[in-house]
This record gives sequence, structure tokens and C-alpha cells, in this order.
Amino acid sequence: MEPKLTTIKGGEFLLKTADPETIFTPEDYTEEHQMLREAIRDFINKEIEPLKEEFDSKEGTKIAPEKLEKLGELGFLAISAPESIGGMGCDIKTDLAASEVMSDSFSFSQTLGVQRGLGVNTIMFYGTDAQKEKYLEGIMSGKLKCSYCLTEPGAGSDANSGKTKAMLSEDGKHYILNGQKMWITNAGFADIFSVFCKIEDDENLSCLVVEKEWGVQPGVEENKLGIHGSSTRQVFFENVKVPVENLLGERNKGFKIAMNALNMGRLMIGVAGSAISKRAFNLGVQYANQRVQFKKTIASFGAIQEKIARMAIKIYALESGWNRLGGDMDHLLDEFISEGLNPLKAKQQVAQEFAAECSIIKVFGSEIEQFVVDEALQIHGGMGFSGDSEISMHYRNIRGNRIYEGTNEINRLVIPGTILKYALKGKLPLMQVAIEAFQNLQSGKLVPADSNKSFKEFALDFLNNCKQAAILASGKAMQKFQQEIQEEQEVLSRLSDIISQIYMLETVILRTLKSDEQNKELREAISIVFMNESADLIKVAVKEIIFAAAEGDTALMTVKAINKLLQLPVENLVALRRNIASHFIGENRYNI
Amino acid sequence: MEPKLTTIKGGEFLLKTADPETIFTPEDYTEEHQMLREAIRDFINKEIEPLKEEFDSKEGTKIAPEKLEKLGELGFLAISAPESIGGMGCDIKTDLAASEVMSDSFSFSQTLGVQRGLGVNTIMFYGTDAQKEKYLEGIMSGKLKCSYCLTEPGAGSDANSGKTKAMLSEDGKHYILNGQKMWITNAGFADIFSVFCKIEDDENLSCLVVEKEWGVQPGVEENKLGIHGSSTRQVFFENVKVPVENLLGERNKGFKIAMNALNMGRLMIGVAGSAISKRAFNLGVQYANQRVQFKKTIASFGAIQEKIARMAIKIYALESGWNRLGGDMDHLLDEFISEGLNPLKAKQQVAQEFAAECSIIKVFGSEIEQFVVDEALQIHGGMGFSGDSEISMHYRNIRGNRIYEGTNEINRLVIPGTILKYALKGKLPLMQVAIEAFQNLQSGKLVPADSNKSFKEFALDFLNNCKQAAILASGKAMQKFQQEIQEEQEVLSRLSDIISQIYMLETVILRTLKSDEQNKELREAISIVFMNESADLIKVAVKEIIFAAAEGDTALMTVKAINKLLQLPVENLVALRRNIASHFIGENRYNI
Repeated sequence: MEPKLTTIKGGEFLLKTADPETIFTPEDYTEEHQMLREAIRDFINKEIEPLKEEFDSKEGTKIAPEKLEKLGELGFLAISAPESIGGMGCDIKTDLAASEVMSDSFSFSQTLGVQRGLGVNTIMFYGTDAQKEKYLEGIMSGKLKCSYCLTEPGAGSDANSGKTKAMLSEDGKHYILNGQKMWITNAGFADIFSVFCKIEDDENLSCLVVEKEWGVQPGVEENKLGIHGSSTRQVFFENVKVPVENLLGERNKGFKIAMNALNMGRLMIGVAGSAISKRAFNLGVQYANQRVQFKKTIASFGAIQEKIARMAIKIYALESGWNRLGGDMDHLLDEFISEGLNPLKAKQQVAQEFAAECSIIKVFGSEIEQFVVDEALQIHGGMGFSGDSEISMHYRNIRGNRIYEGTNEINRLVIPGTILKYALKGKLPLMQVAIEAFQNLQSGKLVPADSNKSFKEFALDFLNNCKQAAILASGKAMQKFQQEIQEEQEVLSRLSDIISQIYMLETVILRTLKSDEQNKELREAISIVFMNESADLIKVAVKEIIFAAAEGDTALMTVKAINKLLQLPVENLVALRRNIASHFIGENRYNI
Repeated sequence: MEPKLTTIKGGEFLLKTADPETIFTPEDYTEEHQMLREAIRDFINKEIEPLKEEFDSKEGTKIAPEKLEKLGELGFLAISAPESIGGMGCDIKTDLAASEVMSDSFSFSQTLGVQRGLGVNTIMFYGTDAQKEKYLEGIMSGKLKCSYCLTEPGAGSDANSGKTKAMLSEDGKHYILNGQKMWITNAGFADIFSVFCKIEDDENLSCLVVEKEWGVQPGVEENKLGIHGSSTRQVFFENVKVPVENLLGERNKGFKIAMNALNMGRLMIGVAGSAISKRAFNLGVQYANQRVQFKKTIASFGAIQEKIARMAIKIYALESGWNRLGGDMDHLLDEFISEGLNPLKAKQQVAQEFAAECSIIKVFGSEIEQFVVDEALQIHGGMGFSGDSEISMHYRNIRGNRIYEGTNEINRLVIPGTILKYALKGKLPLMQVAIEAFQNLQSGKLVPADSNKSFKEFALDFLNNCKQAAILASGKAMQKFQQEIQEEQEVLSRLSDIISQIYMLETVILRTLKSDEQNKELREAISIVFMNESADLIKVAVKEIIFAAAEGDTALMTVKAINKLLQLPVENLVALRRNIASHFIGENRYNI
């Protein structure tokens, strides 16, 4: 049964804590969710897995189009599109659950990601009726392959500085497109290119839908560190004639299209991170269970068990995070629709609303994936460095995920940036809450969580204390830097780390509380270790922020008070991690 | 002028602090050191750099032998060999300084490492006069290429469990060798194979020097994640007849040869890590200084400056560490020799004595290298993921360094293991000091370092407090686990992290104190940030150890007292890191 959700808006998690019953977790997957995931798994197992090697070479770029069509025939490219236009009409959480399985497909995952996220969605959200009529069916069925052209050699993080230009033809019927794009996924076989460019002397980007046959010239396949089977090329436009009716959305408003696509794209990178983390985890655990040294499997050594536990805890946090966010997005979507908003507009607005959370999942997901793949490789010992081991392929494949769709550095600015923007707009009463928190801190009203209480009370109290710490740190930073805070990237990055950790911590605690009896002890152990790791991380980050924003005794007293607030009782983390590891070693894979 | 060194023995740094004047630092390089480094740099620039691409492909395995010979002709394969046998007769610190430059040679660095460290040294240290007579000149000149055959498919970390076997022939003149080795560097072109095997039904390994032409069968070139130009193959022995006089050292004592070679090998991996870290750092800084986004170079953004500072600080620590260790080793070597030990025996003993420090440099070096290469790649943005960028090659090349020569997990056990062994043997009065530390902690004699004192006093006081924390944590762990501590790999690993951090911290502080006026402010800033980072790291690790080794209030009180001891005054780390970054951004490379 689906949980009843109370609406939580973007950034609100920092000030409110949701009722455990209201968050969506993997335990809430219905039979439909499971069937959809299994159907996709089936496809991947049959069509993609046997071609693992090909998808690790440029050969994959030749196979991908045909596989895309097969997947399209099964309807999997249009899971989230409304039934009215031939899609499956699934909600966001279902789309994410499906995406996790689809992402477990080597470099083919990139092809899919662009086709589904940027291909289907941009036309669906922003296309005119005529554009939808002309392209959407072809895209959803995989017959028309899509690519998305934003980045240029001189315009990466600073996307708006791109030089690609469209001039109106004399008869006013066409744009004449000139320019060059870079790192374009699917460029080798795409039929449709969504090209961001400036029209005439516009200051801002617009987006044109350009057909290959109008003269688009893809370059040669790029050499990359990984995802060799994903086609990545430069794309050149030399006087390409694009009919004016192929402007997507409004002129000068292309940046919004790009940014909105990015929000969902960022979330999807985190979901893909979850998929690859699980796969790598399984490779690592299975190797540890099978490799014998000193007459024992290496899984029986503490140093390896610690790795397995650390990986599992992070994966638990990550999958909790994106499932919960999907649920929260669906709920707000329903609310917007019930307020009379058109469903497609509502979806765009939801993605925008949750920009910070999408970035959190992107940063957290791509960094957990890096951690897990690296540790799983390390467990493999010499075999991990072998080019013939699957794990070394993942090690190469994933390195871009901390760079694409906004580097993690840019996303670390987006996270507190969005929340501070909401605060300035009055959407979040952050400053008021911060003032209150300072008063409470000084008057001694804030006290460490008491482990003599029930696990639930204790964990929620600790979570609240972490939030107070985040609010105090944000408050100090805003007070000190005011409008200039944009220039304080290091402070913003530390704030981002705190806020992200709290989002994950909250989700882990709520999921654990909600799951109740199923693996209760294991989930509580995971939560407690994660609480300890969070306390360590938050303390260091808070210290750096406060020391940058305040001086002398004030700074020292504030940090001491916050440290005390985050104090946790004595827990034998070594023993807890061994217990956690033993579950997964027994399962021989990630299964909870 | 060379500094006068007071002898410090293996593990002693944990209990004593050397006088800054007595440690060897890069600032002590003489003109001879510089000339040697420049001569090698010249060779690398001319002979290796232009072949960067070849050394990133199997093509490199074909070029390497010829380059090895050229290097041998210049004498660079025998830097540390005595002049009496045709070497340069340099001391250890000079050998390391030369090795750093030699390691900056892509995958050719592997070829060199095996030839110099395992080829020359094993024969030089353990060979009979006849063996030296027969092989050494050829090896030092590069005419005879060496490989070192220890690992087997079933015997990695557990090297002694190898199955390769040598049976004495009926006439007693030969060993008949059968077996299989794996991950053998230089196997594709080696003339000489040092093969670890068991003779007859021995329990322990012996080492045979085997000539290729006696029937050694190398397999095909392995595919690897990186260092593609380094030849790595399996090696098969099928009834290979090895004359009995080719037994190296004593029968049944091969493990000692392997372990001793490993100690120097581990140190060399750290030195190589230093080389590649600097190279990657330079690539990163230069990219940041040249890449413009939002109308500024990206080096002008705080998020990038933070990365540059974090990298530079770690590199400063790493290069301080191995230079210092080289100096300490030389000094003890002199002492051993003055006590009448044969110089070659003395050198073996020094390597054994400093086993913990060699492992520290290995773990720290390979992990800093990983950090720096990863961050430098991240600074490159999309270009970092390009297969055509140099940084992505380093990303692949270095991943094995945390695995070879003892995984970092094994080395993390060696570090506290060696020190605890010294304590048990009475070489280090660790338990006595720990008891005293507990008394001092309880009686309030241990107090936080006072920043109102001079930088020197303050830094040394803090360093001493870190040592007290390490001693307290070790004491608690030994008290709780006693003989069973070997089974507590997680506790040992945390101890290792603390001990290693202290070694590096001490070295950074001493070097900074010694360097005096040259870049004084910069060095102090680096030291202060490193002190803060060390405090954060040590606090978390101490907590995990104490919570695993003690319970309830005792545990909590101990952790609180140690946290207090490690307290540092308010420092704006953001501002300090910006200052540090600004120096290196100005230099456009690692230069201090």
C-alpha cells in the first residue's frame, strides 16, 4: 500500500522532519513496481549483459541504436510520459525505480539517459503541439535518436557563454545556425539535436530542434577514460537551415529549459550511482566470499568486513534518498495538479522546486558510487587492476559522473544557494529559525540526544540537533557574509556537505523507523553508524564555517556548544560494522 | 651543508621528537643532489617524454628494454650500489631523491623500479660472490633485464602459500622447477627471473635466480587498467633445470629476502607517488590558470583554490616524509657500519628496522597520489574524462599502487604491528609510556597546546599531544585485546592511520621549523592547516578505538579528555587555504 504523504516542499527538510509513515521507501514498491523492474532487468540480461565487452569499446556505439529501438518497442523509453500521448503514465517514483535497473547497463546507460531524460522530456515539456506531433512518437519508440547539445569548448560550467549562433534568414522562415558543440552523447547516430544557441544578438540562450539531415556534422568519436560504448562527439553546424517553427519554448528562455532538464538529469545520475554501487558491491562481496588467503576467505577478515559495512551503509543511504525524493516530488506534483496546474507544467515546477534535493542526490550518489567502486576494486586486489576484471571497467566508466550535469563543485554551490534563495524570498523562515536557535543555544535549551530514550526518540532528537547545527552554521555565515556569500565558495561547499548529510541521515532514520520489524536490528545498526559518521562530518564542516565567519571566543564557544549538541553515546562501531557486514556477506550481495 | 643527524630508530618517532636541525629535508639537497636529479630529468625529457603515448600502450613494452640499457649506460641503475662494484655509491637519501625524478616516467617507471629495486638489490644483498660476478654488472648496465616472481594466482597477500616447487635432481646438481607466477613486471623481456618457490617439502620459501633461456615461459601480455607500457605477464615453469648454485641466500629463508625487498619497494612507491602527485598537481594548476569560465580563470574561484591548497599541503607532507626517512635511514646505517657491520648487511638491517616507516610512506604516498590525481582530473572538468588528456592516463596508471607491494590494508596492519612488536621486545617502552600518559591524563597534567606561545613551542606541544593521544589509544587497545590484537584489524587500521598522520605531521612541523626564513609564512600556514586536519582525523580514529576497547563512562571520559588535548585555537582555515593556493597559482606549479 502506498503511504500517505504530507507535502514537503523543496528545502523544507532542513526545518521540518517528516513523519516516517509519509516517506516513500524501497519497501513500498508495489507488485507493479517489481514487475516493471523485472521486465527491464530481463531486457538488460538478454540484450545488454552478453555485450559487456562491446559496450566497453567503440563497438558499442554501433550496437546502441538497435538496442534503443528494441527498448522503445517495449515502451521503456516513455515510462513517465502520459498515457494520452502513448506513454506508460507512471509517476516519478516509479520512473526512478525503473531507471535504477535501466542504468545497470554499462555505457548503454548513457545512451538511454539522454534519450529518456533529455530527448523525450524536453520535447514533451516544451514542444509545441506541432513539434510533439512531428517528433514525440518517434523519440518514444526509439526510432528517432536524440542528442542534447549544450556544452561548447569554451562553455562548460558557464553554459550561457556559448558562441553557437542562429541568424534569422532574410525571408524570416529559417534560422541559419553556426557553431560547435562538445561532449555530445549519442552524436554518432542521433537524428534529432536539441541545440542551445543565441539567436541574433540575444543575451540569453534559446533552444532549436535540429534534424541531422539538415546538415549537422558530427565529428569523430572521442577517446574517453570510460563508457567507450557510448557515442560522444563534437558536433559542427555550418550554415544549417532550421525552420523557425523548430524553436523550442520561448526565444531567450533556453537556459530555463537546460536548467530544468538538468535537475531531473542530476537526480538520474544519483539513481544510476545507486545501480552501479550495488553492482560493484556485489562484485566485491562475491570476490571476498570466494578468495581464500591465509586459509580463510578474505571476507572473514575485519579489514574487509569494515569495507563491506561502509559500502553497504552508504548504499542504504543513497537508495533511501532517491526513493524518498521521488515520493516527495510525486506528492507535490499531485498538489500542484489539484491546484489546477497543467500536469506537464506542474512537473517542471516540481523539478525546479526540488533543485537542491536533486543536486544532493547527484553529489551524494556520484561520490558514493566512486567510493563503492573504488573499495570493491581494492577488495579484488591484483585482479582489480586487471583490465579484464569487470570492476576495473566500472572504475573507468563512472569517473565522469562527478563532472557531467554540473560538476559536483557547481552542485555544491546550488544546494545551499537554492536554500538561501528560498530563505531570502521568504519561502523558508531560515533567518528566524537561526535567531531562535542561537537563543536556545545560549540559554542551554539545546541538549544532546538521550540514548536512554527509545531508538525513535533518540534518533529523531539527534537528527534535530544536526539540523540545529546546520541552521546555526548557515545563520553565522549569512550574518557575516550577507550578499557577498556567493563569493565564499568554500563556506558554501561546507554548508552543502552538512545539508546533504542531513538529508541522507533523515532519510536513513525515517526509513529505518518505518520499516519496523523487517531486519530491524540491522537497520538500526546501519542508522547508528551513519549517525556517528554524520556527527564526525558535520562537526568538522561546522568548525570550518564558524571559524571563517566568526572570531576568537565567540567562534570557539559556538563550536564547542555545537560539538556538545552532536555528542553521541559510546557505541562500539567496530562491532556494529562487523554485524552489518555479516548480513551482506551471508546474502552474498546487496539485499536488505 | 648536510645537517647533523642524531640517530632515531624505527618506531621511535612515536615516543621522541627529533630536533628540527637533525632531519633531512628537500632544502638540504646539495649541488650534487641537484645535478643528479637534473641529469636524470634530462634523460627522461629526451628519451621518455616524447614517447608518452607509446608508454600508455603495449608498444611501450617493446621500447622499454632499449631505454633501460641507455639508462644503465649512464649509471642510473646503480645509484645506490657501492663504487667498489661499479655503482655510484650514493646514500639512501640521494637514491630516493634520484628515484623521485626517475619515477616521473609513465609506465616505464615500473620497469625501472623492478630493475633497480628488485633486480640490482636482491643480487647485491643476497648473492654469492659467484652470482654477483656472473650477473651484477649485466643487471646494473641494463644488459640483463630482471623480473621478480613472487605472486601466484592463489598466493597474493599470503605470499608464503605459493605452490611453485623446486625438486633436487637425482645427481644433486639442479633444481627442477615447476609452477606458475602472476603479475610479473618485465616478464616480456626479462633475462633473469628471481623466483620464490618451495624446495622439496620445505615449509618456507626459497629464492632461485633463473635464466630465461633455461626454459622460462612467459605468458601473454596482461590487459591492465593502466601502465599499459609496462610488461606484465604470467610466467610458467615446466621442469626448468636450475643449477643448485643459483639458490639466492639460504634455503627456506626466501621470505626474508622478499620482505626486505618489499620494505624498500614500499618506500619507493611513496617516492613515486610524490613524483606523480607533483606532475598531476602541475597539470591541475596550469589548467586552472588557463581555463576561463564566467570571465575569470577558474583558479580565481574559491572552490578551485581549496582544491589546490589541499593538494599542495599533502604533497608538502609527502615529500617531507620520504626525504626525512631517507636521512634517518642513512644515519642509522652509518651507526651500524661504525659498529662494524658489513655495509650491505647494515643496509638490509636498516630497511628492516624502519619497516613501519616504509609502510607509512607507502600508504600515505599512494593515497595522496590518488587524492591529488583525482582532484587534478576534477579541475580539468570534461577534459579530465577525455582519454586524450594526460591526467586521465595517470588516473588509470596509479590505481595499482594501493595494491602492489602489500595492499594498503596489509600495510595498515604492518605499521602498528611493527611498533607493537618492538614494544613487546622491549625495544620501545610503549606500555610504560602509556601508563604514564594515563596518569597524566587523569591528573590533568596534559593540557592543550597554547597558541600564545611561539609557533615553534605551540606546534611542538600540539605534536606531543597527538603522540600522547596515539599512546593512550594504543595502550587501551593493548590492555583490552592483549595477544588477540592481531584479530582486531579495524582497531589496528585506525591505529595505523593515527600513527601515520603523526609521522607526517611531525615531519611537516620539523621541516617548517628548520626552513626558517624561506617562505616562512607559507610553510607555517601549511603546518597550521595540516595540524587542524590531523586533529580532525586523529579524534575520529581515537574515538573508534576507545569505543571498541572500553565501555561506558570510562570510554566517554577518555575520549573527551583526548579531544580536549587535541584542541586547537580558532583559525580561519578558509583564509589560510586561499593564501596557500595563491602561492602555487602564482608559481603555476608545485614549487616551494
